[in-house]
Amino acid sequence: MAASASAAARKLVVDVHSHLYPSAYIELLKKRTDIPYVRPFPPTNQLCLCNRPPQNTSQAGGSGGGGGGDSAASKVPPGRILHPHYYDVAEKIAFMDHHQIDVSVLSLGNPWLDFLPPADAAAVAVEINDATDALCRQHPGRLFFFGALPLSGGESVILAEVARLKTLSQARGIVMGTGGLGNGLDDPQLLPVYRALADAALPIFLHPNYGLPGPVWGPRGGAYGQVLPLALGFTMETTIALTRMFLSGAFDAVPQLQLIVAHSGGCLPFLAGRVEACIEHDKTWAAQGKLTADRTTLWHALRHNIYLDGVIFDKVGLRTAIEASGVDRVMFGTDHPFFAPLDGGETFPAMTLNRDAARDVFPAGADDAAGYDLVMGENAVRVLNLRTSDAS
Amino acid sequence: MAASASAAARKLVVDVHSHLYPSAYIELLKKRTDIPYVRPFPPTNQLCLCNRPPQNTSQAGGSGGGGGGDSAASKVPPGRILHPHYYDVAEKIAFMDHHQIDVSVLSLGNPWLDFLPPADAAAVAVEINDATDALCRQHPGRLFFFGALPLSGGESVILAEVARLKTLSQARGIVMGTGGLGNGLDDPQLLPVYRALADAALPIFLHPNYGLPGPVWGPRGGAYGQVLPLALGFTMETTIALTRMFLSGAFDAVPQLQLIVAHSGGCLPFLAGRVEACIEHDKTWAAQGKLTADRTTLWHALRHNIYLDGVIFDKVGLRTAIEASGVDRVMFGTDHPFFAPLDGGETFPAMTLNRDAARDVFPAGADDAAGYDLVMGENAVRVLNLRTSDAS
Repeated sequence: MAASASAAARKLVVDVHSHLYPSAYIELLKKRTDIPYVRPFPPTNQLCLCNRPPQNTSQAGGSGGGGGGDSAASKVPPGRILHPHYYDVAEKIAFMDHHQIDVSVLSLGNPWLDFLPPADAAAVAVEINDATDALCRQHPGRLFFFGALPLSGGESVILAEVARLKTLSQARGIVMGTGGLGNGLDDPQLLPVYRALADAALPIFLHPNYGLPGPVWGPRGGAYGQVLPLALGFTMETTIALTRMFLSGAFDAVPQLQLIVAHSGGCLPFLAGRVEACIEHDKTWAAQGKLTADRTTLWHALRHNIYLDGVIFDKVGLRTAIEASGVDRVMFGTDHPFFAPLDGGETFPAMTLNRDAARDVFPAGADDAAGYDLVMGENAVRVLNLRTSDAS
Repeated sequence: MAASASAAARKLVVDVHSHLYPSAYIELLKKRTDIPYVRPFPPTNQLCLCNRPPQNTSQAGGSGGGGGGDSAASKVPPGRILHPHYYDVAEKIAFMDHHQIDVSVLSLGNPWLDFLPPADAAAVAVEINDATDALCRQHPGRLFFFGALPLSGGESVILAEVARLKTLSQARGIVMGTGGLGNGLDDPQLLPVYRALADAALPIFLHPNYGLPGPVWGPRGGAYGQVLPLALGFTMETTIALTRMFLSGAFDAVPQLQLIVAHSGGCLPFLAGRVEACIEHDKTWAAQGKLTADRTTLWHALRHNIYLDGVIFDKVGLRTAIEASGVDRVMFGTDHPFFAPLDGGETFPAMTLNRDAARDVFPAGADDAAGYDLVMGENAVRVLNLRTSDAS
């Protein structure tokens, strides 16, 4: 079912935060014995993706820390059960149809390719990106994707894949975690990668994976299920990574660099004023001569380099994201297939909560009601150039 | 100079986030050899409060992690230089006069009394709280305070000091860090303390101290001065502590408990929707039967238990705090004497930025302009019962 792009172009609903593990990726992880790996999980032998070592296992049941144990005897799966909606593109399309999403921009889920041995990185990236491009081409106008970079492969390998992604018809950017080359996004060794991405007009979809060190959740953290690492760990990880990147001067060095930040920027839209105040008040910082009058401020970066997805689940947060970054810079997303419905039904609350938040911020009939269409799709179409391939 | 309380009562400017170390506290820390302690720092031998062990010392100069090194040869003080505005109440009054602040609610700065040997806790708390009450009584109607609790002293000692604070004329609540009794604010052993505070109608002023583990700032964290631990570490610490407290059911157990949360609640106003979504989607959580229909939601807690100070430095954050908690629940603050001016002048940007943020949210002449007065003082007067003692 192709979207009726011409007549309804202004009303397209675009999901920029939508994960898919292509089969080649799952096969790769099945062959691994170290984390991350994929294994059957008893008693049903469903495939399970174990992404993190267990941490902060609770006294009260449940698994804290975002991972889970590795014991086959445990009742809690040691990671994510890979239901078909994690890898089957037909499930993705069915989800989109059910929720009236016209276009999705797919990204490989974490942990991406960060773990690859350097010698394997180039070939695996080609295989995974080509497979994803092919999946998207099966649904013209409906599926695009953010490619995965072979970050462990060294600069020339990474830059070669950036150049190659630019030639793939459905690629519209790259997905990157907060680790970068292993030392964070403030690593000066990433600058050539940032420059290449900016030159290729490929934005980075920045997504968390690693969370925060387990002890911050305290001795009772496991009793709260995944709530703390998922609600706070992920968003704080993103915020720290992005702030470090900003403080390193990456946006001064590569002014055309574009990021789309998952989960509405973590906490940064709310904390941007405090970050700026702390910079201005930091004597050590000032003493280093970095407080030049023409430095890029975080507000400038939020309005010129950073786009935010709309995966924030409530109008209070969504309005903050829009005020921080601009109504033309926030893009609807669902985080599918995560946040699956618990009631056995087909409707994902992650879709309805985030759509309703946009409607709450821009009520129908209000002066700024057009903001709803911007957030729900027009921004993504414009920024990611989705209309061009619509006609393909 | 007493505030002209009767005529201008509706326009009082109240600062609920204002720290003072009474002399008795500094003398106590001078006698200590373990962190925290106070020592003269060469070459000028100014007193310096060393609050944290050094962490994440940079490759590029500066001291990350919120503390600093302990080397007398270092050019960077191993903590805070204790300028008179940290302990001299005349400096506090001069600051208030210069910035047209009518009333301040003082709190002991971190690390409060958390470090005391249990046997000393009761007597030190009495000494510090009585000294602070006496300082406040020297300036009737202008100074009130949040008392410090002897948290290491055991339950009966803590509850005795809560009862005693209720009898001190200028006490209006208590200041507490995120450590609680040592295991966080989700510790069930804190419930009797929470109940006693609720029964005494003494709110908790919740303030961070410990930050996040140093490795999260990465290998270049020290190059950014104190920006990361101060802007992000403090706010994330608060957010995690408060979310843990909420998840533990503390607000279900003690529905009348009142908190005033520093730095506009950390990140929680922005993340509340995500926290709620993660709770609703967490199968482990659901399986524990905690998703009862009548559970207290985080939104309910934000609107019934939690007040937020306005120390957020920008209109985007302040508006979020107000939307999350309500215009009648956000209270102006300055964090004085932190964020001191760097230009040698007397005007603290922490005052002007936070006041201007309130004016930006509630422009003069707008329909909701009255919100400015609520945030700048009326909320604090009402919630903390500041008018009563004005007449004393």
